[in-house]
Amino acid sequence: MSSEGLLDPLFSSASVLAAVSDEAWLRAMLEAEGALAQAEADVGIVPRDAADAISRVCAELVLDPAQVGAESLAVGNPAAPLVRRLTAAVPPDAAGWVHWGATSQDVVDSGLALVVRRTVDLLLADLDEAGRACALLADGHRQTVMAGRTLMQQALPTTFGLKAAGWLTALDEAYDALSAAAAHGCAAQLGGAAGSLASLGEQGVPVLERFAARLGLAEPVLPWHTSRGRIAQLGAALAIAAGAAGKVALDVVLLAATEVAEVTEAAAPGRGGSSTLPHKRNPVAAVRVSACARRVAALAPALSAAMVQEHERAAGAWQAEWDTLRDTLRLTGGALTGVRDLLCGLEVHPDRMRANLDLTGGLLMTEHVMMVLAERVGRLVAHDVVEAAVRRTDGGDLRTTLLADPVIAQHLAPAVLDAALDPARYLGSADRFVDRALAAHRRALTRRPALEV
Amino acid sequence: MSSEGLLDPLFSSASVLAAVSDEAWLRAMLEAEGALAQAEADVGIVPRDAADAISRVCAELVLDPAQVGAESLAVGNPAAPLVRRLTAAVPPDAAGWVHWGATSQDVVDSGLALVVRRTVDLLLADLDEAGRACALLADGHRQTVMAGRTLMQQALPTTFGLKAAGWLTALDEAYDALSAAAAHGCAAQLGGAAGSLASLGEQGVPVLERFAARLGLAEPVLPWHTSRGRIAQLGAALAIAAGAAGKVALDVVLLAATEVAEVTEAAAPGRGGSSTLPHKRNPVAAVRVSACARRVAALAPALSAAMVQEHERAAGAWQAEWDTLRDTLRLTGGALTGVRDLLCGLEVHPDRMRANLDLTGGLLMTEHVMMVLAERVGRLVAHDVVEAAVRRTDGGDLRTTLLADPVIAQHLAPAVLDAALDPARYLGSADRFVDRALAAHRRALTRRPALEV
Amino acid sequence: MSSEGLLDPLFSSASVLAAVSDEAWLRAMLEAEGALAQAEADVGIVPRDAADAISRVCAELVLDPAQVGAESLAVGNPAAPLVRRLTAAVPPDAAGWVHWGATSQDVVDSGLALVVRRTVDLLLADLDEAGRACALLADGHRQTVMAGRTLMQQALPTTFGLKAAGWLTALDEAYDALSAAAAHGCAAQLGGAAGSLASLGEQGVPVLERFAARLGLAEPVLPWHTSRGRIAQLGAALAIAAGAAGKVALDVVLLAATEVAEVTEAAAPGRGGSSTLPHKRNPVAAVRVSACARRVAALAPALSAAMVQEHERAAGAWQAEWDTLRDTLRLTGGALTGVRDLLCGLEVHPDRMRANLDLTGGLLMTEHVMMVLAERVGRLVAHDVVEAAVRRTDGGDLRTTLLADPVIAQHLAPAVLDAALDPARYLGSADRFVDRALAAHRRALTRRPALEV
Amino acid sequence: MSSEGLLDPLFSSASVLAAVSDEAWLRAMLEAEGALAQAEADVGIVPRDAADAISRVCAELVLDPAQVGAESLAVGNPAAPLVRRLTAAVPPDAAGWVHWGATSQDVVDSGLALVVRRTVDLLLADLDEAGRACALLADGHRQTVMAGRTLMQQALPTTFGLKAAGWLTALDEAYDALSAAAAHGCAAQLGGAAGSLASLGEQGVPVLERFAARLGLAEPVLPWHTSRGRIAQLGAALAIAAGAAGKVALDVVLLAATEVAEVTEAAAPGRGGSSTLPHKRNPVAAVRVSACARRVAALAPALSAAMVQEHERAAGAWQAEWDTLRDTLRLTGGALTGVRDLLCGLEVHPDRMRANLDLTGGLLMTEHVMMVLAERVGRLVAHDVVEAAVRRTDGGDLRTTLLADPVIAQHLAPAVLDAALDPARYLGSADRFVDRALAAHRRALTRRPALEV
Repeated sequence: MSSEGLLDPLFSSASVLAAVSDEAWLRAMLEAEGALAQAEADVGIVPRDAADAISRVCAELVLDPAQVGAESLAVGNPAAPLVRRLTAAVPPDAAGWVHWGATSQDVVDSGLALVVRRTVDLLLADLDEAGRACALLADGHRQTVMAGRTLMQQALPTTFGLKAAGWLTALDEAYDALSAAAAHGCAAQLGGAAGSLASLGEQGVPVLERFAARLGLAEPVLPWHTSRGRIAQLGAALAIAAGAAGKVALDVVLLAATEVAEVTEAAAPGRGGSSTLPHKRNPVAAVRVSACARRVAALAPALSAAMVQEHERAAGAWQAEWDTLRDTLRLTGGALTGVRDLLCGLEVHPDRMRANLDLTGGLLMTEHVMMVLAERVGRLVAHDVVEAAVRRTDGGDLRTTLLADPVIAQHLAPAVLDAALDPARYLGSADRFVDRALAAHRRALTRRPALEV
Repeated sequence: MSSEGLLDPLFSSASVLAAVSDEAWLRAMLEAEGALAQAEADVGIVPRDAADAISRVCAELVLDPAQVGAESLAVGNPAAPLVRRLTAAVPPDAAGWVHWGATSQDVVDSGLALVVRRTVDLLLADLDEAGRACALLADGHRQTVMAGRTLMQQALPTTFGLKAAGWLTALDEAYDALSAAAAHGCAAQLGGAAGSLASLGEQGVPVLERFAARLGLAEPVLPWHTSRGRIAQLGAALAIAAGAAGKVALDVVLLAATEVAEVTEAAAPGRGGSSTLPHKRNPVAAVRVSACARRVAALAPALSAAMVQEHERAAGAWQAEWDTLRDTLRLTGGALTGVRDLLCGLEVHPDRMRANLDLTGGLLMTEHVMMVLAERVGRLVAHDVVEAAVRRTDGGDLRTTLLADPVIAQHLAPAVLDAALDPARYLGSADRFVDRALAAHRRALTRRPALEV
Repeated sequence: MSSEGLLDPLFSSASVLAAVSDEAWLRAMLEAEGALAQAEADVGIVPRDAADAISRVCAELVLDPAQVGAESLAVGNPAAPLVRRLTAAVPPDAAGWVHWGATSQDVVDSGLALVVRRTVDLLLADLDEAGRACALLADGHRQTVMAGRTLMQQALPTTFGLKAAGWLTALDEAYDALSAAAAHGCAAQLGGAAGSLASLGEQGVPVLERFAARLGLAEPVLPWHTSRGRIAQLGAALAIAAGAAGKVALDVVLLAATEVAEVTEAAAPGRGGSSTLPHKRNPVAAVRVSACARRVAALAPALSAAMVQEHERAAGAWQAEWDTLRDTLRLTGGALTGVRDLLCGLEVHPDRMRANLDLTGGLLMTEHVMMVLAERVGRLVAHDVVEAAVRRTDGGDLRTTLLADPVIAQHLAPAVLDAALDPARYLGSADRFVDRALAAHRRALTRRPALEV
Repeated sequence: MSSEGLLDPLFSSASVLAAVSDEAWLRAMLEAEGALAQAEADVGIVPRDAADAISRVCAELVLDPAQVGAESLAVGNPAAPLVRRLTAAVPPDAAGWVHWGATSQDVVDSGLALVVRRTVDLLLADLDEAGRACALLADGHRQTVMAGRTLMQQALPTTFGLKAAGWLTALDEAYDALSAAAAHGCAAQLGGAAGSLASLGEQGVPVLERFAARLGLAEPVLPWHTSRGRIAQLGAALAIAAGAAGKVALDVVLLAATEVAEVTEAAAPGRGGSSTLPHKRNPVAAVRVSACARRVAALAPALSAAMVQEHERAAGAWQAEWDTLRDTLRLTGGALTGVRDLLCGLEVHPDRMRANLDLTGGLLMTEHVMMVLAERVGRLVAHDVVEAAVRRTDGGDLRTTLLADPVIAQHLAPAVLDAALDPARYLGSADRFVDRALAAHRRALTRRPALEV
């Protein structure tokens, strides 16, 4: 995960890649060591001078992931060689206080919590932008009538605004879930070798409090070395965010299909083109989002499966979390950056939407005709009359067949029938639902911090 | 899922089985139909008499799952035949108002939301009881010294109270996560054929409000036919609850191992016995919890993978949710009932815990001896002296070897050394952490409704 | 799993349900007990009379799953109460030989192996029928030209025959994988309490040989109590079979979309209809297959995750296999029965396929025009000329634009251009590939036993 | 995945990392382009000079993964920029023949097939070495008596040789499964834009044959662009190999537990040590294997879930395979390298095994005593007498209690009783099973190619 690889541009974003990189994690582990020394100085365990010396080196030391990795083989985690190198870099009289009272897992977990905290902020920013783009689409396409589709069959008219409102609500809920999971889940870890902070004597809890505060991480009730619900919750929230993005991407892929052609991804030089097939404009961003969402759906569950851990330190399940968590963050990043770009540049074709609605020759509107007729002749008669007319149509022109029916001709003037056959007049609460989604979105925005990424 | 099967007693509980049964789901779907008619009467769409007639039949109609199932084959969901049978059972003048404006998914989802709501209440009750039992263990075993184990190796002393406190905190956090997921996730579904409530005209939103209120379900911003974050979140919360139970079960299995023998499951006639091996007392409850937790860990992720759904109704992903969700509830029920029983009856053997601590002949205490000596001779000297003594011990008696060392003999009186070698004096914040877990537990209890199950 | 539940008709078949039922498993466990007694009589351990008495009772005893289930709670598996009831039903002088030398897992696993063996035969029969239906489609639609689609965009012409050939090859490969997995995977289990067949003295291996032979199960090299590769392999093969079915179902759902309308599922009274939307013909079988395939994709991996088991008997992982395996079989059954029905009744609309090909106004054929022109003017010139013409077309008539180009007009007579624009003349190896798939299918058929189900 | 990262040393091996690296994949894609040109020259489509020029450049061109990755963003796969760069590097008169008739997926998939083929050979070599080490342990510890454990409880005596034989058989079966999956699964891909090889006219199939032969890959019946069973099967085989390794690792972790202490991982400088806890020897290799096996168990299923792909090219599922497959290979490599090292260096402690057997004071042998007594007094009497004696023992000395029983004293001389209480005389077929496992292993070795890695 050290440098940018072949598929990283496709499946992530540069900022997220940097935030979950080996280098970022090593830096975060060093931050944790620095904060630990300072916290212990706060309560009088470590001399302030020594703490200052340690935290100064922690801020400056640059470690080579490949080297630390090679040295971690004998002990099984990257914190041990990091501590060794840190100790060697600290002035001798402070060196004895490095990593005081902590265990490797304290450093690994606190470092990961910092990595998660920072990466999640990037993901939230993408979710925020994607939501804003969705809100514009929802508001701007309130009147854009299109076919609602169930099991891929045209069912009833709806609006593109309502479809976008559905995406919006899902993205907003994903924002809330991820934000909450990170607030609770990004907790400081400090327990010492067996979770009792044995070597800190009476001062374990005060040190934990100061340590968490200095890192800006949540303070846990207890060390959570083998109590991993917060990691599982983070994974779940990431999967929900990626899933919300994947739903948008699937709809876009389907709407962009040659035979549907109701949306197109933003054009860009070379974008979505095919060397052999110059006529194609592939939905490449949607495909990337879809691929990322699939990968996250497979990775995130491993974090909840890893909750079952032995005693005070797991023999495998914890170690399996490290890259699973970082990969999940990275690929959720790919999904969210992708869906943001997708939504910001989406080209919508209301004319095609309208034309596709006519493919069934008005059949989508028979329910409405039946209801309008029922107001005049009662529900049962209306049902039988319309159903018989539909059967007589058989691919022909529905309006003509309906007008030819004596009952309909008697009760519905052509203009009334045309109104009943007009998809734009059978949209129910579509507009109200868009209002509700936008109102909820505005409320959600007020809850969000001004993100500076 | 109709009647109790061979493995149901092992992997679930009778009350949860009943709550997720086909019969319960059918009844819940009928409740939804009844509430719909009443909600539509509230806003003046359906005549009150008709609504009353419908909801009366909904309350009384008993449907045969096998029959409804057979009739669902042609349409692909159980709501369609249910509506047909309900319509036939309602007086003719009310029959026309059955299912008014709704689509099959509205009934299926709202029914499932009721099933989830009721089942989750049962699960929360089990979590509550399990937590209370844990709290007693944590409080009662504050002084019960045992080995803390990392990677299955004895590391430092800890207390059984702290171990139980860790279980407790995880169970309490699982309670909160599940409770929150159900509050948001158990939402009414009402959108009509394409999510616009087309046939309810201007009154779609008021009907939705009344419908949700009458069912006691959350009112969604929008129909959520293909916006399934709430289902994914429910699955995640169930997996976290099962995972917390699975962690307890794993610890119990390991602590009950013949060579460790620090806990035993409650004895019961025939319980845990082996026909061929009369001396064995198997940890059968823990094994069942573990099996359930594994199954939930595999099932729940399918709910988040199912978030990516087509347009306004999914062609497969939604249908795959139905039994996945019910199986996940059922098996989480097995895990939670099991862990509750396990914790309520757990036999703890403090003598064995103390004896196992001595297996390493005091090696667990060398860190402490080093620290006590360091106060007299400095850290570096202390480290070298103690490490050399440990190496000389080589399976012999550590205390003797330490006392034979001239530096130690000079600075540590035998009583001081014995104190340094006493595991009970090297527990750090174990007791404080138990206090924190119990305090958090008491706060959690005040947030919980008085459950009546 | 005892009686047919609400969703069973949708997601399985009656024969598969019966084959994986509790009753079938209990009967299979009794068969294993009977075969064990006879195998031990074969080598002289058990008196033949006693063995005959035992196997007679095993053949006739009917156990109630709910009762056995209730009795299994104390010991944690269904074999123990089954043995108790069997022993009570056998004449006293034979009773002492019941279950001789075996452990519960021997009975549970051997019984499951029989269940799997019989269920897999049903699944193979469905795969066989589905393949034959595919072969007819492939052969019958060699000339049915349609759009090949990549990323849901029309790319080049292909034939429906080639598409069906692709389905066929995947189904045939799934048959082979499943057949091989069952041949190796359905093995007898006999190891006694710790896998050494301790109480059979020198005769353990001969008893194992006779036991496997009598049950018609594979003879393992060793007891496989905690060596579960064969179960993982079975799960993988089931997932591949369900995945092959799911691919067919996805294509059918997409081809049946209103805007594409190239295939329709077989009509049946009430089938695929929608109460509110009389014009719809939903692809209900494909949706069911898709739902089943999704569920299998989630369940089967739990079998390979369960390979990591403790010592000589697992504390959870083995127990989690029981219903995971049966559910996987059951839902694979749903997928395969569904895809068989789907393929046997599929209505193909060559006219719609041809019409959809024209949607892009010949753009799909530009590559071919370019190649034909290149033979006259060289590749580079041809490329530039055609590309420029395509750009000038801009939604107009491609043929007209091409003919208006002076270079094209000079080198390509209208008839030659029309040939180059004819999709049916640009199918490459489509027909040859159909031949290959059918030849491979015929070879596969000769390897298959005449199934009698 | 470009350079070695922080966790790579822990969770993979250098050779596997190199084999699945971006660089290796790009080289393999270039090999595929070279082989394509030559195959087309073989059948006369491409001039031999042009093919030679192309394959020469393919052999020498070094592409920068980060650059190719950046350029792939617009088109969504790495083959398109690779083809562009290759074309630019080839002499102008040959440039027109680069990638002739192929589509991007042909190159991506064929390249991946080469990567898999080569990586699997490395994995098979590790499996082979691990198996040989196991065979030595099985043979060498035929007489090493230890406790067989079920549900973590001591059950009956067994031998460490039999335990190792179980590991061996599982590793050998994993070898066969992986070898077979690679032989079928590593197939050439060549179908052109829509799977019909349209632009190769009549010569599609001969080119495919030559292409596969030149790459040393299996020749598929058809292009398998969206027929992904072979990838799913590869994933399953990798999961089975990692699972077999994970089972060994779990047993080692449990046997190395402080209280059991029956095995130790090979000592190495700094290996398994703990900075704060000098007395610990952690089973670090087993923990790494366990972590890798867990990750593979989560990743591999995504390959079978990805089988359901749209039409002639998937919109997401295929793209999700790329890194899933490479990560699965990489982490299976970590598991297999780890288990090989673990087994080659494992220290076995027969004395501890014997001592642990005595923990239950002979209770493990009561079944045997009962059987020996039964030969003298009948089964029922023997059962009652021994069971009563066991109950009277209650933690005391079983031998004394048994001898004090009048029935036992009458029928079993002390020497006979001692023999009945000797675990080494109650091992049943343990030795025969070891023979069978070793014989099967020798047969397996003869089927394997002499690997040169």
